[in-house]
Amino acid sequence: MSDHLTRAEKVLQRINELASVSEDDGCITRTYGTRAFIEGRNKVEQWMKQAGLQTRTDNIGNIRGRLLSGNADAKTFVIASHIDTVINAGKFDGPLGVLAGLDLIEQIIRSKTEIPFHVELIAFCDEEGCRFHTTYLGSKAVAGSFDKQLSDKRDAAGISLGEVIKQNGGDVNNLSKDAIAKEDWLGYFEIHIEQGPVLYERNIPVGVVTAIAAQCRIELIFTGEAGHAGTVPMDMRKDALACAAEFILETEKFAITGKKKLVATIGKLHIINPASNVIPGQVICSLDIRSEDENILSSSCLAIKEMAENICKKRGINLKWGLIQQTKPAICDKGMNKLLVQSIKEAGFDPVELVSGAGHDAVPVSEVSPVAMLFVRCFKGISHNPLEEVELKDIAAAIKVSDNFIQQLVKYKPPVR
Amino acid sequence: MSDHLTRAEKVLQRINELASVSEDDGCITRTYGTRAFIEGRNKVEQWMKQAGLQTRTDNIGNIRGRLLSGNADAKTFVIASHIDTVINAGKFDGPLGVLAGLDLIEQIIRSKTEIPFHVELIAFCDEEGCRFHTTYLGSKAVAGSFDKQLSDKRDAAGISLGEVIKQNGGDVNNLSKDAIAKEDWLGYFEIHIEQGPVLYERNIPVGVVTAIAAQCRIELIFTGEAGHAGTVPMDMRKDALACAAEFILETEKFAITGKKKLVATIGKLHIINPASNVIPGQVICSLDIRSEDENILSSSCLAIKEMAENICKKRGINLKWGLIQQTKPAICDKGMNKLLVQSIKEAGFDPVELVSGAGHDAVPVSEVSPVAMLFVRCFKGISHNPLEEVELKDIAAAIKVSDNFIQQLVKYKPPVR
Repeated sequence: MSDHLTRAEKVLQRINELASVSEDDGCITRTYGTRAFIEGRNKVEQWMKQAGLQTRTDNIGNIRGRLLSGNADAKTFVIASHIDTVINAGKFDGPLGVLAGLDLIEQIIRSKTEIPFHVELIAFCDEEGCRFHTTYLGSKAVAGSFDKQLSDKRDAAGISLGEVIKQNGGDVNNLSKDAIAKEDWLGYFEIHIEQGPVLYERNIPVGVVTAIAAQCRIELIFTGEAGHAGTVPMDMRKDALACAAEFILETEKFAITGKKKLVATIGKLHIINPASNVIPGQVICSLDIRSEDENILSSSCLAIKEMAENICKKRGINLKWGLIQQTKPAICDKGMNKLLVQSIKEAGFDPVELVSGAGHDAVPVSEVSPVAMLFVRCFKGISHNPLEEVELKDIAAAIKVSDNFIQQLVKYKPPVR
Repeated sequence: MSDHLTRAEKVLQRINELASVSEDDGCITRTYGTRAFIEGRNKVEQWMKQAGLQTRTDNIGNIRGRLLSGNADAKTFVIASHIDTVINAGKFDGPLGVLAGLDLIEQIIRSKTEIPFHVELIAFCDEEGCRFHTTYLGSKAVAGSFDKQLSDKRDAAGISLGEVIKQNGGDVNNLSKDAIAKEDWLGYFEIHIEQGPVLYERNIPVGVVTAIAAQCRIELIFTGEAGHAGTVPMDMRKDALACAAEFILETEKFAITGKKKLVATIGKLHIINPASNVIPGQVICSLDIRSEDENILSSSCLAIKEMAENICKKRGINLKWGLIQQTKPAICDKGMNKLLVQSIKEAGFDPVELVSGAGHDAVPVSEVSPVAMLFVRCFKGISHNPLEEVELKDIAAAIKVSDNFIQQLVKYKPPVR
């Protein structure tokens, strides 16, 4: 494995070098289209060129490098992840997939592997959506699902997305030309840190993603009756917070009983006119439910809603249940996942299948192409945080597995879609 | 009862007239020492003078009217409540006690009742404490427990309490001279709206207060681990909000089981860095516990703390439990309460005993004098709100009961203290 370790070191060096490019000193922040983002992207383009790829920046701002097959009519296999970050980010979320992907292509070239498909490495420009509060700008453009109306969106400084595209040399009217046509996709592969604790807890370096979870976001408003904390007896109260507390506990219990098919989170809770000596009259909270199985998600939403209604009825509390957002799951390709499982076994690891609770660029791509994702263990599952950490040996493991995967892919005959 | 109704109408007219004096149009706001407060106080002084009382404004700003006994060495019986208000207040909280008290004294004069004690009617200047965030300024001065350091406190505009006292013609150095010496108090009587729903729910116009509850205020900090709402499985979470929710529910259950000896309220709850897709890592909340019985309060505090610790231990959450404030109960005088119960029976009502969960001017006075309070039913227990409402017939009931009370008091021989 020493060869893989050496390659992992080079990947890590590049990750560190990219992490040094930030909007702010002392932390890692490279949001879409900023000067730091462009500087970071130029570095990645430089590395792509050094590897011998034909590079171009597309209109939305992705940097793309192609390695052509001997067969000019071949389909394209995309290896990708993103190089934008959240504010005060870790260094692996995104860049690991781009730079391990680049290493993978360098190995194809080095090993003179004859590839029956074009390979395109893409560093997506906006997965996190921090600047314009809209995710997947880069991958949506490549998947051909970019909604032009998004270009009217404005950042905190009032600059529109369209203006940023223009400033950086792109043309909003040409965005659709950057899409890879559905018939030209062979597949999509993304290496990404897990951003969760499962691999870490199970002491396994990599895992295969079976699906990216479907998600439901709901806003709940509990309306009871505010009252004096000293004068209203316990049995005469309509305490909106106690009601919300019962809802939170019952939701937790419901999700735990769901046996890993479901996660449910109340992340925001706000009391209207809070005071230590006032019984809360109104409470607003969020509910985030995710599942790999769309049917389980839908039936769980209904069941949790009914539960909330019953709790409120019992307590004389009025409930408003508002659906904010519902997304479908992205199912990873079974054929490619078989190759990945085989590649993991060949590398000497236990194959573990995971559902991604977080969204990834594979979500919009899954509408036009088979997708596969390899998750890499990160320290305690911590992400979106400077404490994000991936061990060198785990990067080496990901490289070893991905090498095997490419070797299998070269021989792979995908089912006719 | 038609005489009492007529008197109640006059009381209500004065309450309405006082309510028309406000810092802001369209609502009732008369906080301590403001121009509206002075204007309202002048009205009350005028009414006191019309009744034939010797009036004076003391240094803190109370208006006081005396009706002297034939016996110059007699002790003083104080009838009082407050005329300051919260912001956007109701019109009865405070003024009812002052103006029904004035009617009571007018009746003593009218009926030529020979009183073996001086009667002093006091309209306290600051019970709510809205301007300087410190309650009972007026009654503390009369009880001789005013802490001179309070005069350095500043309001939102940066004006100190000392400056307000001076502006309004008082002298901070003479505050102690306004106190009624402990040996000169015969007793203290306050008529006040219940500010709670008990009388309303039981359909009874008035009630006798047995005690003003002891109170404990605690700040709790639950520290778990923030995490991605999509990627951390339910059984690996350290959700600070779910933990707080369990604590809230268990506290509610504990207080309900306490069978009316206890109220417990979580009125504030704040998630640190809340986001709908982030598992709450830290939650800060308040806990307000009250009981008429100091021992029950103390043992309940300990029991609830232990409960919180157990919940946190089970969930791997760190708990910080900080005592913010603890006050003793004010116990109403058993002798005077007997007279009040008798007076209620004579008036044809069922005598009901209540604990006041809210604080009143009787609290500081109870340290130097026997105190008694008569609660009057208010609509649904609503208070500190423009919806605060007292029916005319309930004011009449309070007047009838208080008349009886004074008649009994005239014949009353209090136990030697």
